[in-house]
Amino acid sequence: MYTVDLNVDLGESYGNYILGNDDKIIPLISSVNVACGFHAGDPLVINKTLDLIKDNEHVSLGAHPGYRDIEGFGRRHIPMTDKELEANIIYQLSALEGMARTKGLQLNHVKPHGAMYNAASKDYEMAKIIARAVQKFNSSLKLMGLSGSSLIQAGEEVGLSVIHEVFADREYMDDGSLMPRSHPNAVIHDTSKVIERTVKMVIDQKVTSVNGKILDLIVDSICIHGDSPGAVEFVQGVVQAFKEKGISIASKY
Amino acid sequence: MYTVDLNVDLGESYGNYILGNDDKIIPLISSVNVACGFHAGDPLVINKTLDLIKDNEHVSLGAHPGYRDIEGFGRRHIPMTDKELEANIIYQLSALEGMARTKGLQLNHVKPHGAMYNAASKDYEMAKIIARAVQKFNSSLKLMGLSGSSLIQAGEEVGLSVIHEVFADREYMDDGSLMPRSHPNAVIHDTSKVIERTVKMVIDQKVTSVNGKILDLIVDSICIHGDSPGAVEFVQGVVQAFKEKGISIASKY
Amino acid sequence: MYTVDLNVDLGESYGNYILGNDDKIIPLISSVNVACGFHAGDPLVINKTLDLIKDNEHVSLGAHPGYRDIEGFGRRHIPMTDKELEANIIYQLSALEGMARTKGLQLNHVKPHGAMYNAASKDYEMAKIIARAVQKFNSSLKLMGLSGSSLIQAGEEVGLSVIHEVFADREYMDDGSLMPRSHPNAVIHDTSKVIERTVKMVIDQKVTSVNGKILDLIVDSICIHGDSPGAVEFVQGVVQAFKEKGISIASKY
Amino acid sequence: MYTVDLNVDLGESYGNYILGNDDKIIPLISSVNVACGFHAGDPLVINKTLDLIKDNEHVSLGAHPGYRDIEGFGRRHIPMTDKELEANIIYQLSALEGMARTKGLQLNHVKPHGAMYNAASKDYEMAKIIARAVQKFNSSLKLMGLSGSSLIQAGEEVGLSVIHEVFADREYMDDGSLMPRSHPNAVIHDTSKVIERTVKMVIDQKVTSVNGKILDLIVDSICIHGDSPGAVEFVQGVVQAFKEKGISIASKY
Repeated sequence: MYTVDLNVDLGESYGNYILGNDDKIIPLISSVNVACGFHAGDPLVINKTLDLIKDNEHVSLGAHPGYRDIEGFGRRHIPMTDKELEANIIYQLSALEGMARTKGLQLNHVKPHGAMYNAASKDYEMAKIIARAVQKFNSSLKLMGLSGSSLIQAGEEVGLSVIHEVFADREYMDDGSLMPRSHPNAVIHDTSKVIERTVKMVIDQKVTSVNGKILDLIVDSICIHGDSPGAVEFVQGVVQAFKEKGISIASKY
Repeated sequence: MYTVDLNVDLGESYGNYILGNDDKIIPLISSVNVACGFHAGDPLVINKTLDLIKDNEHVSLGAHPGYRDIEGFGRRHIPMTDKELEANIIYQLSALEGMARTKGLQLNHVKPHGAMYNAASKDYEMAKIIARAVQKFNSSLKLMGLSGSSLIQAGEEVGLSVIHEVFADREYMDDGSLMPRSHPNAVIHDTSKVIERTVKMVIDQKVTSVNGKILDLIVDSICIHGDSPGAVEFVQGVVQAFKEKGISIASKY
Repeated sequence: MYTVDLNVDLGESYGNYILGNDDKIIPLISSVNVACGFHAGDPLVINKTLDLIKDNEHVSLGAHPGYRDIEGFGRRHIPMTDKELEANIIYQLSALEGMARTKGLQLNHVKPHGAMYNAASKDYEMAKIIARAVQKFNSSLKLMGLSGSSLIQAGEEVGLSVIHEVFADREYMDDGSLMPRSHPNAVIHDTSKVIERTVKMVIDQKVTSVNGKILDLIVDSICIHGDSPGAVEFVQGVVQAFKEKGISIASKY
Repeated sequence: MYTVDLNVDLGESYGNYILGNDDKIIPLISSVNVACGFHAGDPLVINKTLDLIKDNEHVSLGAHPGYRDIEGFGRRHIPMTDKELEANIIYQLSALEGMARTKGLQLNHVKPHGAMYNAASKDYEMAKIIARAVQKFNSSLKLMGLSGSSLIQAGEEVGLSVIHEVFADREYMDDGSLMPRSHPNAVIHDTSKVIERTVKMVIDQKVTSVNGKILDLIVDSICIHGDSPGAVEFVQGVVQAFKEKGISIASKY
């Protein structure tokens, strides 16, 4: 009846620093966004992550480019000229795509990370730089962005297929943007509430804002956070709830 | 009568730090090796360098991967596992190749940089990791290495075309290796002597070692250093001397 | 009659990348601001720079902390929490101060660099974090900042001695801030005009804004840029003009 | 009857990457070695770590300098000139010492990290560079190194107090060096065996090598690894075993 994509950001380890539960979560979901070595990941981590994806043929491979800032994990906005931003995007897409190619894997989509994602959700000019960079690199790639945001609009404007993404564990503002992480209530921690919310988003294509406003949302893909302690159990809970409601999980792409 | 390739390492600027005379030297030579952002270069620098190459269609484009060590400029040997080395090579080739592709440029060859080049010249096992990484990425790429070295042998072993490279301004040891840079006499600074030496290398396919031994050398390509103060004048001198001796400059590839 | 401090940012080389004319400019001026390894410099560069300062006992030693961003040379604003900013400042002051101590040199002042300087010139809350960090580290250090700016006010507020700095080669806005570098006319390139402007600033303690408004300025120190091609000649010109006008150069501190 | 120091390397988190169980282990031990931001740690992490140490007044504070290589976690040997190595050491000691000073904490000792520690254990010339750097920075600091190694000898040679360190969970070679981590049996994982071994080392001042040879060892301090999953339980086990044998835990310094 219903089909939705579950996506997770992974390949976020760095050298000796291990992050996430990539191997346990990947079998449960339908799309992955792989860090490209700028905000997280390194060549060896990317290599291992791609091997893991290779072993899970049902998942769609996405690139997850971010600002070059390991210390800040790509969560700090770094101002760049348009040319710099374009070059930073294409460099990262190239690196990941080339490594994937040596393993017979194909890139399906691009989702900017962290501060780059957030800025592009609101700044249409910046979003267009990103969308054009993706289009220049490979016009058959899809662009994943916050449902209904500037990034999605920019993707459509340059002729890319787009993937509207929603966050089940994040509060929404009345204008459809995410409540900033700096706000103490930005993230919903009650697992059963998040699962319920996830199911509702898929079926209703709506979400209730922090102020109680009902917002229309296109829900192509749901972002799952894979690096929290209870992440695996949470995803299992979502998968079970989807099963009960007849929602199938697939990237559709 | 004679044809030889002149190659230069470029795209070695980094952020605010400018290195080299890329725009002045590129019209005079036949091959370029572009830093991939690990030991030098960044996405914007690569982008500018590729634009410059685009404007000089006669040059062959090479990738110049190195150790991830901007502070050491890739001149410090960083020990890696085989898997790490392979991933580091493929990541860099991918990044450069993908950026080049968006400009309609094609990669022709690969030349490891600095400490990676030197180590692979002597360490056959390591050379094979590099050669296999190149082959895995794109088996039609040529591998440039020190004439007659392990790197060249490894390239041939895995089925790559190879480019024997010589250094006109560096003293050679009796075994055909370069005198290490740490030695005060490693680099020959007398320009006219270097030019004379360059011409002799091409015509005789021989070089005289620091101890006076005559060494046979295959001379496919001559490395020109583009970042010294008198680099442009030096290259002009080489070009002029070649003209007088009937040596044409071309990458042949 | 008149005395003014001439300060220059130096120690901005990084690994193989050489920047500035430190050795030629240092004998001509009275204060130096040494990069601490975050936006420029590395331990070896700092070591060499301190040796140079040791040989020029007339100059006052300042720390020049910046954002940890070599690629952006500290010119990109990186958002930080208050605690992060404080820790980043104290780490850099500590590193430089400790290295200086091993050479018998003493730290005199602190001048934030680039984007950190600019942000703190306008953002009083941020300026107070910086001022308090300096005060916490060593309350006898002076704080150098844009003349009349928030940074100066914050320094006074926390009880630090302050040094009002002006820029002779930069256009001023009507509110006393510098015209942003992104503006094509931000930097005045006509050397004789800059020298004339420098002299006037010292004697009149005023500057004319880009719109012709006369602004009162406290001029304790004049920033000299040491990394441009004609930097040495320019500083010599300033020194000569000062001599003719009876302005002596000293840090007074 | 017996007293021994238990030391742990900590402050090894980096930005978003959390490593170790610093808060749980610190109350159980007597000395800490804090990463200085080169192989691990960043200013904010150092700040938090120092706050933790401040709350545990019984522990002695050490600096844990390493190679500037976050990606390799300081476990890859990076060749440096003597001057570079000295500058890299003093920079790190300065950074940590200055930050500690603002919290009223005093530096007690220095223990090089990872590849730097291992190299200095065998390379006496390199060990002397490190020892002299420590001595130049602050001659009252103690130097911690592998029991009986070149690093300890170099420390004594330059007049520093030294701390002989042993590793209870590492196999020893017949010459008193540690079996390299690359060897599959290098680390002893059987907790009860390690605890037994630890007790024996303290009481006998001897260790049995991997080949069964009995080696004399000076045991001033025992290194405890705090970043493994069962680290806290392991340290509790050691503490309990020490109690039963009448071994008290103190840094003695």
